[in-house]
Amino acid sequence: MRAELVAVGTELLLGQIVDTHSAFLSRELSQLGIDVYFHTSVGDNRDRLVAVVKRAVSRSDLVIFTGGLGPTEDDLTKETVAEVLGVPLVEHPPSVAVLERLFSDKGQTIPPSNYKQALVFEGGKVFPNPNGTAPGVAVSRNSVTCVLLPGPPTELYPMYHAEVRPFLKSIRDTEEVVVSNVLRFFGIGESHLTERIGKLIQDQTNPTIAPLAKEGEVTLRLTAKAGDLQQAQELMAPVKEEILQSVGRFVYGEDDDTLEKLVISALREQGKRLAVAESCTGGLLAQTLTSVPGSSAGFQGGVVCYANEVKTGMLGVPTELLETCGAVSMDSALALAEGVRSRLNTDFGLSVTGVAGPDPVEEKPVGLVYLGLSERGEVTRAYRLDLGGSREKIQIRAVKQALYTLLERLKKGVAAK
Amino acid sequence: MRAELVAVGTELLLGQIVDTHSAFLSRELSQLGIDVYFHTSVGDNRDRLVAVVKRAVSRSDLVIFTGGLGPTEDDLTKETVAEVLGVPLVEHPPSVAVLERLFSDKGQTIPPSNYKQALVFEGGKVFPNPNGTAPGVAVSRNSVTCVLLPGPPTELYPMYHAEVRPFLKSIRDTEEVVVSNVLRFFGIGESHLTERIGKLIQDQTNPTIAPLAKEGEVTLRLTAKAGDLQQAQELMAPVKEEILQSVGRFVYGEDDDTLEKLVISALREQGKRLAVAESCTGGLLAQTLTSVPGSSAGFQGGVVCYANEVKTGMLGVPTELLETCGAVSMDSALALAEGVRSRLNTDFGLSVTGVAGPDPVEEKPVGLVYLGLSERGEVTRAYRLDLGGSREKIQIRAVKQALYTLLERLKKGVAAK
Repeated sequence: MRAELVAVGTELLLGQIVDTHSAFLSRELSQLGIDVYFHTSVGDNRDRLVAVVKRAVSRSDLVIFTGGLGPTEDDLTKETVAEVLGVPLVEHPPSVAVLERLFSDKGQTIPPSNYKQALVFEGGKVFPNPNGTAPGVAVSRNSVTCVLLPGPPTELYPMYHAEVRPFLKSIRDTEEVVVSNVLRFFGIGESHLTERIGKLIQDQTNPTIAPLAKEGEVTLRLTAKAGDLQQAQELMAPVKEEILQSVGRFVYGEDDDTLEKLVISALREQGKRLAVAESCTGGLLAQTLTSVPGSSAGFQGGVVCYANEVKTGMLGVPTELLETCGAVSMDSALALAEGVRSRLNTDFGLSVTGVAGPDPVEEKPVGLVYLGLSERGEVTRAYRLDLGGSREKIQIRAVKQALYTLLERLKKGVAAK
Repeated sequence: MRAELVAVGTELLLGQIVDTHSAFLSRELSQLGIDVYFHTSVGDNRDRLVAVVKRAVSRSDLVIFTGGLGPTEDDLTKETVAEVLGVPLVEHPPSVAVLERLFSDKGQTIPPSNYKQALVFEGGKVFPNPNGTAPGVAVSRNSVTCVLLPGPPTELYPMYHAEVRPFLKSIRDTEEVVVSNVLRFFGIGESHLTERIGKLIQDQTNPTIAPLAKEGEVTLRLTAKAGDLQQAQELMAPVKEEILQSVGRFVYGEDDDTLEKLVISALREQGKRLAVAESCTGGLLAQTLTSVPGSSAGFQGGVVCYANEVKTGMLGVPTELLETCGAVSMDSALALAEGVRSRLNTDFGLSVTGVAGPDPVEEKPVGLVYLGLSERGEVTRAYRLDLGGSREKIQIRAVKQALYTLLERLKKGVAAK
């Protein structure tokens, strides 16, 4: 099944918003075994939209439109598709009732223009929209299916998962199962990784192997197509095994794992608590940890010790140490990790101090970062990093390296039990 | 001048990456008075790319391609455009020299496939690429100009600003100046804002007025086109004046301003220092402040007091208060703000405590957040917020509201001088 995606809205062509829906829908369609051949963005302009719709229905089996279903004169998607396909629009009483209830709840009468949101394709499919006013709609003509979905993400995503995905599964021309497995790497660059498994990537057919690099992490997505789940898994297993044998020691997790999720769950499993002291990352480490729901089970809190007075006053780092070695030093990283662990009375203390830029500090170069890891009853360790990139990138990479360092330590803890 | 953008790469159609280049280029072209009518993404497939190139050169005056200039067999953009336009590709000695130097620096010989990156359009334009191996290229035929740029953002953005923008300025068919001015609002929703200035938005022609809502903030972008800068500003001035008269009290800044930048610069100007205490935002407030280069001038640091032991131990919040009122309460917000201000010895102490979700805490609902603002020599104040959305959204909105509250206070401080 050949599919294409059309995003409608002048704000896309002005660059006021980025089209993230097409990437989302492409990932979803690929999971259903549906190939996407084109993405198009077009403005709220009748003539150009007509041309795009005509072209799309002439070359694809499935066309998914996002945006342009709202109440204003600029919202033209449904009217234009109806015109090109020659399918009448009819009023959909349940959608009218939703509109009436929404407005009466606010004590308002419905502006006449709003009723057009309750028009649907005659003989088509309607996807209810519990999070907005315009339902999604679909219609098939001449073996082409057009699906029209609302633009706001808070409406599109729930509607896709609840209504559109099952609908697409029912109309696709394959019973193929598509299974993906993502391997997550840290501590190895994309070029080294792809070099190490170059032959596998070159020979890939089924499963396919797609590498992707992002802020110091690299992922490999394995995707297998087969008649059923077991066959797909059997295709995947030997390839995955071969990858793990070659570069398995750099794998920290799979699929939806993140470093912070794994750190929090390892802390919880081992009944350990963590405190952090951050200088150059300014709160990003703590914020990354607390972005995990339920992080309070393992994360106690931390100190953002941006100024030296905070390092000494709140964490007991000796003024003399800061004067002789500087705040960006191995010794400061050790003292910060120990200080925050003892002050917050936790099992682990993790510290980050460095130069995020844009300017050097203490005559030390941008990108120089020290990590400290203190553990109850163990010798405190420190690590030196030389990171590149912008201020933001240096902060993100320092945080990831800190989490990875702790995760490696926690994994050893489990192994030793 | 009618333009369209073509992003080339199968990874776009698989949803592995989001096409952010088209939004970037659209914004840039709109600033040059060039209208963008279509965005297309197409895979690394010769036949489909040929179809896209043919269509684009038949309906547009300017086509900008991104991606597909690399050394692999999948990189087809240049070859395909050359074929469709009937323009030969010729070797570009300076680009060959760059390739040879890059490889010899690594002590390697050039793989033969790499030489194709040094091919350029005969009689065309070459944009050097100091950050990669493939230069950008451009060629004009039959009054259509095709511009081909590398896909990696670290290559595309510098090349655009240094080379492509001046080139586009030289070929556009207008001497028009396009001037934009962004007004930044906080504390008013998009629907209320557009209601209040509805007539202005409806009657807009020049300047145009584009509202955009993002995480509790709303922006209005005014864009005027005119023969010269002064004329554009004269068109803009009365419209801006009318907006400010109606909703000016919600404007916190303009153009590239952010709440955190304005807070840091106000602190610096007034010689004041800030400390923060965060519970439910888990470090995001500190991290947002330290994302501003030079933030150390006004931001001293903070405490992420996720666990109650940290609130009592590090910030002196009485255990009794936490037991009677709870950690999520007006009284805790006050005590946290005062505690962090006195412990870090700063002029201002700003605190956030609340329920970010997904689960209620202390039988208090998700989205309930209290802010505290302590100031040396003044009565400490607390504020209650009822926020909606996901855990992440609640955290972002709480941080923005905290920054806005402090900014309003700092502005009064300046006014009183």
